[in-house]
Amino acid sequence: MTKKHRNGEISEFDRELSAGTAGGRAVGDVILGIDGGTTSTTCVCLPFLHPHSLHLPDSLPLLARVEAGCSNHNSVGETAARETLEQVMAEALSKSGLDLSAVRAICLSISGVNHPTDQQRILNWFRDKFPSHVKLYVRNDAAAALASGTMGKLSGCVLIAGTGSIAYGFTDDGREARAAGAGPILGDWGSGYGISAQALTAIIRAHDGRGPQTKLTNSILQTLGLSSADELIGWTYADQSWARIAALVPAVVACAEAGDEVANNILQDSVKELALSVTAVVQRLGLCGSDGKGSFPLVMVGGVLEGNKGWGIAQEVINCISKDYPGVVPIWPKVEPAIGAALLAWNFLKDCEQE
Amino acid sequence: MTKKHRNGEISEFDRELSAGTAGGRAVGDVILGIDGGTTSTTCVCLPFLHPHSLHLPDSLPLLARVEAGCSNHNSVGETAARETLEQVMAEALSKSGLDLSAVRAICLSISGVNHPTDQQRILNWFRDKFPSHVKLYVRNDAAAALASGTMGKLSGCVLIAGTGSIAYGFTDDGREARAAGAGPILGDWGSGYGISAQALTAIIRAHDGRGPQTKLTNSILQTLGLSSADELIGWTYADQSWARIAALVPAVVACAEAGDEVANNILQDSVKELALSVTAVVQRLGLCGSDGKGSFPLVMVGGVLEGNKGWGIAQEVINCISKDYPGVVPIWPKVEPAIGAALLAWNFLKDCEQE
Repeated sequence: MTKKHRNGEISEFDRELSAGTAGGRAVGDVILGIDGGTTSTTCVCLPFLHPHSLHLPDSLPLLARVEAGCSNHNSVGETAARETLEQVMAEALSKSGLDLSAVRAICLSISGVNHPTDQQRILNWFRDKFPSHVKLYVRNDAAAALASGTMGKLSGCVLIAGTGSIAYGFTDDGREARAAGAGPILGDWGSGYGISAQALTAIIRAHDGRGPQTKLTNSILQTLGLSSADELIGWTYADQSWARIAALVPAVVACAEAGDEVANNILQDSVKELALSVTAVVQRLGLCGSDGKGSFPLVMVGGVLEGNKGWGIAQEVINCISKDYPGVVPIWPKVEPAIGAALLAWNFLKDCEQE
Repeated sequence: MTKKHRNGEISEFDRELSAGTAGGRAVGDVILGIDGGTTSTTCVCLPFLHPHSLHLPDSLPLLARVEAGCSNHNSVGETAARETLEQVMAEALSKSGLDLSAVRAICLSISGVNHPTDQQRILNWFRDKFPSHVKLYVRNDAAAALASGTMGKLSGCVLIAGTGSIAYGFTDDGREARAAGAGPILGDWGSGYGISAQALTAIIRAHDGRGPQTKLTNSILQTLGLSSADELIGWTYADQSWARIAALVPAVVACAEAGDEVANNILQDSVKELALSVTAVVQRLGLCGSDGKGSFPLVMVGGVLEGNKGWGIAQEVINCISKDYPGVVPIWPKVEPAIGAALLAWNFLKDCEQE
C-alpha cells in the first residue's frame, strides 16, 4: 500500500487488494463515508483499522467508490434523497464484495442538514437497516469538507466557494457556526455566482453609461457567443441556473490578470466577502483563543479557491484573514469529501471506543 | 366638462357624455391609448379634438377604460400578447358604443418593445385590421409613462421604480436612451426588489456575525410571520417572484424612519443608483444642453417614488440629480400611462397633419 491516492482515486493495487481479500473479511470491518450534495452524492467504502492502532496512512485502502445524483432532501424530496443514499451504500458494498453485515460505521455528510430534526430524520431512515452495533453519524456536508482537510478531525473552519459560498466552523467541544451560504438573493457575493453576476452587471453598466468601460465586455460576450451587451439580458434570464452563471469566473479572473480594473475590483470584493464569512465564524466560536493569536486550520474547498496563477483568490483570502487572525493555517485537501466523511466515522468510533 | 380626472378615472359625467353622444359621432373621431405591461394592460378611448384647436383640457373626456392581463410578448408569447391587445381595443370601442371605423389613431406603448423589429412586429399584427388612414404608433411602455407626466410630449426623462427600475430618455429630435432595467441578477439595486433583497441580506449578515444588528430583523420577520432569521432562507427561495420580495419596501422605509442605520444606508444606496440611472441617460442624450444647466422634465413613476413621509426616496433622488443637473424639473403624473399613450397619439397626429 505505498501508492498515493489523490481525491479518492482507486489504484489497480487497491482493486486487487479488494478483490483478493474482501471474501475473507470478518463481519464489522468496513466503514462507509458519504458526501451527499445538491449536484451529486459519493459513497466510499474503507476497511476498518482498529482505532488504537490507527495512524492515518499516506495511502488510503479504498475498497470502492460510487457516485449518484442529488441527496439533498430540500431539493429532491425525502423519498428520492433516501433512495439515492440507500443505492450508493448498497452499490459500494456490492463493489467491495460485501453485504450490510460487514459495516462497522457510516458517516452521512449531507447537504441540507441544518437542524437536529434533519439529523434525526436521516438517522430514522437507516437505523433499522443495520444491526444496532453499527454506528450511524449524520452531519452537514461542510463537516466532510472540513474533515477532508483535517484527516477526520472535526475542528477548525472550512471555506467552500464554488457556485455558492459558505464558511463553517467546529470546535473541539462540539459547538458549530456558519456564515453566508444563503444563496444569491441573500447576498453570497463571494461565491462563483456572485463574482459572475457582478461581472455581468459591470458590462450592463458600461453599456448604458453608469460605469467605466471594461475588458469584461468583449471577453464575456465572446465566451457566450453574443454580439452586444443588450443580448446579455435575454441570455441571463433564459436560464437562471446558478451554476451556468458561476461558470464565467475564469473569464473574470483572466480579465483581472490582464490588468482590467473593474474585474480586479470584483475579485477584491469577493475576497473581502469570503474572508469576512470566515472571520465571523472564527470570532463567534473563539477558534483562535482569547488573544486572537491561536492557530486554527482553515480548509479551502471549491472551484473559486483552486489554483489561479496570476490572480490567486485563495491566497488573497488567507492574507486578508491573517490581518485579524495570524494563526490561520490554510489547508488544501488531498482527498475528496467522501473520504473526509469516512475519516469522521473512523474518529467518532475511536472516541466512542475510548470512552 | 369641468370635473377633474385623476389617473384615468371615469366620472358619471363622462359616462353620460359617452352614452349620449357616441351614436352620433362621425367616423374617425376617437383615439386609443394602450399601456401594455408585464402585469396588466390598460386601454383608454378618448374623443379626437382637431389638432389645430388642441389645448390640453384640464378634464380629459374619457369615453372608456378597459383592463386585461400581460401583453409583453417576451413574457406570454406573441399569440397571447396579440390577443390581449385585440381584446382591450375591441372592448374599449364597444364600451364607447363604437366600432373599429371610429378610430383615428392608436398608440400602443408596450413593455418588451426594445428594438425596431419589435415595433414592426406589433405594427404588422394590426395594420390590416384598420383602414389605411388610421395612424398606428408603437413605442416602449416607458414612452407612455413619460407622456403621462409631460401630457403627450415625447421629450425628457422618465424614472420608473417599482418592483424593477429603469430610466428612459427621449430627445426632441427622436433619439432615445435607457439605463438600468436589466433585472435583479444584472444589478437593478435601486428598485423595490433591490431595496428589499438588500434588507433581507442585512438580516442574514446580522444573524451570522458578518454585519451590524438592525431593526430590520424584527420588523421583517414579524411582517413575514417568521420566528428566526434562519427561516428567511426557506421563505426566500420558496417563491422567487420579484414582486413578492419588492413588497417589503415599506418595512425598510419604516425602519429607516425609526433611525435604523442599516435601513438608512440601503435607501441611500438605492437613491444613488436611481439618480445614476437618470444622469447616465441625461448625459448620453445631452438633455440639459452643452453647459449642463438646461432644464428638462423628469417624470417620476412607480411605488418606490410615491409619497413616503419621513424618508422621501423620490425627493432624495431629485436632490442627488440636482447636484449635477440643476435644471431637472420633477413631475409626478396626474394621469395614468394609458392616458399618456393616448396623448402621444394625439401629438404624433398633430405633428403629422402639420407637416
